[in-house]
Amino acid sequence: METKLFIRPGDIEKKSFEIIENELALKGRPDLSPEIKPIVLRAIHTSADLEYYDNLIFSDGAVDKALKVLKNGAVIVTDTNMALAGINKTALEKLGCEAVCFMASDEARGLAQKNGITRASASVELALKLDRPVIYAVGNAPTALFSICEFYKSGRFDPQLVIGVPVGFVNVVAAKEELMKSGLPYIVASGRKGGSNIAAAIVNALLYMLTR
Amino acid sequence: METKLFIRPGDIEKKSFEIIENELALKGRPDLSPEIKPIVLRAIHTSADLEYYDNLIFSDGAVDKALKVLKNGAVIVTDTNMALAGINKTALEKLGCEAVCFMASDEARGLAQKNGITRASASVELALKLDRPVIYAVGNAPTALFSICEFYKSGRFDPQLVIGVPVGFVNVVAAKEELMKSGLPYIVASGRKGGSNIAAAIVNALLYMLTR
Repeated sequence: METKLFIRPGDIEKKSFEIIENELALKGRPDLSPEIKPIVLRAIHTSADLEYYDNLIFSDGAVDKALKVLKNGAVIVTDTNMALAGINKTALEKLGCEAVCFMASDEARGLAQKNGITRASASVELALKLDRPVIYAVGNAPTALFSICEFYKSGRFDPQLVIGVPVGFVNVVAAKEELMKSGLPYIVASGRKGGSNIAAAIVNALLYMLTR
Repeated sequence: METKLFIRPGDIEKKSFEIIENELALKGRPDLSPEIKPIVLRAIHTSADLEYYDNLIFSDGAVDKALKVLKNGAVIVTDTNMALAGINKTALEKLGCEAVCFMASDEARGLAQKNGITRASASVELALKLDRPVIYAVGNAPTALFSICEFYKSGRFDPQLVIGVPVGFVNVVAAKEELMKSGLPYIVASGRKGGSNIAAAIVNALLYMLTR
């Protein structure tokens, strides 16, 4: 029991990643390319769900572009305070990046009521005003993805990466498909799966690729 | 497109739950008993993972006891700020309950360093001082579960419910088994799955059973 309590968290993570890689190999899954591997493994690590090996889809060059943007200080916008809470603040600070969520703000609430839209869509509108490059991480609200795509098409928004991993049974698959055909750089969990935990895990994986 | 953006969140949740119930029925799963159904459906809703139908295990009377405790004002302690962020604050307030997480506190950090334990274990020690009934929700740290069981056995801690849903590949299954044989009232996600999102979903399901 004592030894269990005293294992260092870093060791546990390393061992967990080894177990995940072994199990994927046992299932006959080919090794992942170096730029997406840390992201896929961390999504599996955070959910214990090996399906993320198959689910996660990356647009060409999405990871390289995201890393460049993060190196030069970006704003990560999340669609839930839960995802925001899950992002590693130490790693963010090291890179001079920041993370924000507008969902609970009075501005988002006001804008949503005024325009009869969801707070998730209102949050996207608020993000248009940010004066730094944006990575938008969506773990919950398909309406956030629809709005991002609309503002991108109309030339009002140009996020450097959209992490499109809302979870759910209604509108979620359609929103992800909309994102994938939009022309925006993306990381998507295809199908219904995803969530705030997956959104945060993907952001952290990107941050750790630069800080660890 | 317009209609997608304007669907009300409450309607989406209702439709999602119907879809989940239909798919479980199609898979031949028997209907769930009324006291656990809202919890299982919400765990599936938050992960899009039907496995939670089979994974979630409830000790006898755990839900009834938890609802009684929540009606009289309890403290929900979480092992991550992410789970804390996911708990519905409006529902908590309606019931006169509160939710706390000690993980990022100076006290937990100091205690962990002093005693050579994880911050998750130190957080359990801090929870011993709470003067209201405690529901402990663990979505991440197996060491939190080990510590809860130890303090319970030594008579120093008597949480009214332990939500034991840490996720992961190392020590997680053992910690859940320890909890299930401890004599404590529990809701456990057996196996490796779980997470802060599942912990928050289970807490919210309990809160909504009393407030909606």
